[in-house]
Amino acid sequence: MANFKIILSYDGTEFKGWQTQPGHRTVQETLEGALTRLTGESRIRVNASGRTDAGVHAVGQVANFHSAMTVPFYKLLGAINAHLPNDIVVHSVEEITPEFDANRDALRKLYRYVIFDGTTVSPFLRKYCCHSRQRLDAAAMARAAEPLKGQHDFHSFETEWPNRASSVRTITHLAVNRAGEYIWIDVEADGFLYNMVRTIAGTLMNIGRGFWPESMVTEILRAEDRVQAGPTAPAQGLFLIRVTYA
Amino acid sequence: MANFKIILSYDGTEFKGWQTQPGHRTVQETLEGALTRLTGESRIRVNASGRTDAGVHAVGQVANFHSAMTVPFYKLLGAINAHLPNDIVVHSVEEITPEFDANRDALRKLYRYVIFDGTTVSPFLRKYCCHSRQRLDAAAMARAAEPLKGQHDFHSFETEWPNRASSVRTITHLAVNRAGEYIWIDVEADGFLYNMVRTIAGTLMNIGRGFWPESMVTEILRAEDRVQAGPTAPAQGLFLIRVTYA
Repeated sequence: MANFKIILSYDGTEFKGWQTQPGHRTVQETLEGALTRLTGESRIRVNASGRTDAGVHAVGQVANFHSAMTVPFYKLLGAINAHLPNDIVVHSVEEITPEFDANRDALRKLYRYVIFDGTTVSPFLRKYCCHSRQRLDAAAMARAAEPLKGQHDFHSFETEWPNRASSVRTITHLAVNRAGEYIWIDVEADGFLYNMVRTIAGTLMNIGRGFWPESMVTEILRAEDRVQAGPTAPAQGLFLIRVTYA
Repeated sequence: MANFKIILSYDGTEFKGWQTQPGHRTVQETLEGALTRLTGESRIRVNASGRTDAGVHAVGQVANFHSAMTVPFYKLLGAINAHLPNDIVVHSVEEITPEFDANRDALRKLYRYVIFDGTTVSPFLRKYCCHSRQRLDAAAMARAAEPLKGQHDFHSFETEWPNRASSVRTITHLAVNRAGEYIWIDVEADGFLYNMVRTIAGTLMNIGRGFWPESMVTEILRAEDRVQAGPTAPAQGLFLIRVTYA
């Protein structure tokens, strides 16, 4: 059995997220189905850096799986993609040390949340951003986000999930940028709580539209209470961009 | 009755082209339906700069329509878009002189054909380009395209269409560019024959992959015979970019 590492993109629009759920189309199940058809093995389990939720996109998801397949290496990438639908693409495949575990070994993940705040959203981008009908003050959002950087208890920014040992995480990079009518929020951390980026986005959007003062983020962090934070921004604006390993 | 000019985008993926056809979802019918629901008028006919075919996209289509509607002007753009599905967006609406006719008055139209020639096409762009499994020589395509510039009989580059008076057209701009694994062919002309851009794209792709010599374009033009040219490239790579008026 060899251990394979893959980097992949998917358009999350028509997936009920990463993780296999009976009766739903998921990325994990689709990948596992493609790999078992390709290899003839009875069961291949694909282990991602982390689950993404229904509707969330990825341009640099990382996963690994074990297989005894004998497909010649130069044909492997094409063969995997030939078994996948058009909304998942594997960009690279490599054999890696047997110990590599895409989930456990991930040091940091970078997510990007994309907002459009113009009048008419392009029909080509509508599934890949959140449309704010109100103009947002991106500079205020960037200033307001500062207190989130570093190590904090992000309990106010998670949708509760049972059995989570700790809600302390470290944000290593956080930036809010605007180009034209698009704003994107980049958040890189050593780990993410359930809905954490979308709650940060919803909170910063409340600040960007002047509904809350910039100081609100510090108060929300301190409260350690989800009801203090802004709404969970819609999934379609969220992209998993990159996963960093040692 | 006032005459309104609109500029619109649409994702052509789920439309059977511009022109109304019974039993099919078309851009024209969708727009006309939205405008009659908005205005309460019994029939509004939307007249585009030109038809686009099934699956062809537009980022700068222009059309006009006559209406006696009394929607306040500052609300009009939002009101039109509120009646449209997500794959059509009207970017601007203005009242224009009664004589303006988006089709008859168009001086030039610019189309772009987008090709991806890398290994793995992004799931976000798969519907918006033609995927060439072979690497293409874009510089050879650019050189080969030179003889198409200016006024010619483009009969070899049209899918025959009855009652077409003349197949002489003038290409005012033609460029082939590459950025990374994307190649795009821009063609601006005073008018286009049926499938003309897609036939130019299919011909240049045959040259780009070394199947034909660069000199082939001159021979094809001279032949005035469609069977000499390359295949009609798929609709999903084609965008109507801009329409120019006096």
